[in-house]
Amino acid sequence: MNHLIPLDNLVAALNRLPGIGRRTAERMAMALVQDQKGLVRILANALLEVEEKIVCCERCGSITLSRSNPCNLCLQPRRDAHLLCIVESPADILKIESSGGFQGRYHVLMGKLSPMHGMGVEDLRVDALLNRLDNEPFEEVVIALGTDVESDATASYLKELLATRNILVSRIAFGLPAGSAIEYSDSITLSKALSGRQKMGE
Amino acid sequence: MNHLIPLDNLVAALNRLPGIGRRTAERMAMALVQDQKGLVRILANALLEVEEKIVCCERCGSITLSRSNPCNLCLQPRRDAHLLCIVESPADILKIESSGGFQGRYHVLMGKLSPMHGMGVEDLRVDALLNRLDNEPFEEVVIALGTDVESDATASYLKELLATRNILVSRIAFGLPAGSAIEYSDSITLSKALSGRQKMGE
Repeated sequence: MNHLIPLDNLVAALNRLPGIGRRTAERMAMALVQDQKGLVRILANALLEVEEKIVCCERCGSITLSRSNPCNLCLQPRRDAHLLCIVESPADILKIESSGGFQGRYHVLMGKLSPMHGMGVEDLRVDALLNRLDNEPFEEVVIALGTDVESDATASYLKELLATRNILVSRIAFGLPAGSAIEYSDSITLSKALSGRQKMGE
Repeated sequence: MNHLIPLDNLVAALNRLPGIGRRTAERMAMALVQDQKGLVRILANALLEVEEKIVCCERCGSITLSRSNPCNLCLQPRRDAHLLCIVESPADILKIESSGGFQGRYHVLMGKLSPMHGMGVEDLRVDALLNRLDNEPFEEVVIALGTDVESDATASYLKELLATRNILVSRIAFGLPAGSAIEYSDSITLSKALSGRQKMGE
């Protein structure tokens, strides 16, 4: 039982998933092997179906069904074709869509600048972005990246890259999250909320 | 992007793994879909290989390659054929083997008595156990189950079941784990360690 190579291979594959360490991968693999309800086959089929039917949208880079490419978000005529939101990954689009706070188009970078992880400009979908800016009538680009150092670097890079174009470049607001209190905020959030203060309407 | 059925199916399948909640399953599925290194195919192939090549040992119930059934542990002539260790799952065998503390045969129950989870005697590999006791020369059965209520119930059931047979039934010792101190032990462990005290050698 010490050398079940198929089991070792399964552990190694599961171990490559984000947040799944060696021990968790082993537990998952053992659960799969011991499962009596056909879960191994169900999961394998689900993976093969994803491989066959899901692709990256040729326009925005998000995920879509291979038979609807470009994706719905790129094609929906009701969405604002002048507003482009730049995100790190397709998962971010899901979050923003579920917030209901944005009605424009999206563009997925598929990462952020990170020398530590070997991610440079050439690894991001920047050429595709410039291409879209040439061909689509965008008037504003909203950079929707996080607050970490890599996101800051990526946002700065994009701002410089787009400086020569006649386009407004904005970044999503940082400040107090909904439902939070000054008392419980950390100092970086608070200083960003203060420097990003906005004039109140009448 | 809201209705990618292949993605939903993958999330549902991952969600069935132990310890993988809905949110983790979604994150894993998104990572798989976005992966650029063929992980989807690698994982699918690993699963199909496991399905094809790994089976339950016809004798002990542990997992083994389909081409070596009964498994190595059942066949190795060097192991003590008079000593049988009863465990809940194949994973337990791996742990016991890596401890090096046991050199007999194994029998996997594939669960423990648990009315709460609909596990009765008929769901355990008890008939296979009785069959083995009839046909193999076991002199002692070591019940290696945990310390929870279900394990206690299962151990009691087995002890009664085997009472009429001319066989010694023992259970692994409960007490202080290696490296721990009285000061930091909980009261149940301590009371088990006291009631299970053993005479010291000369």
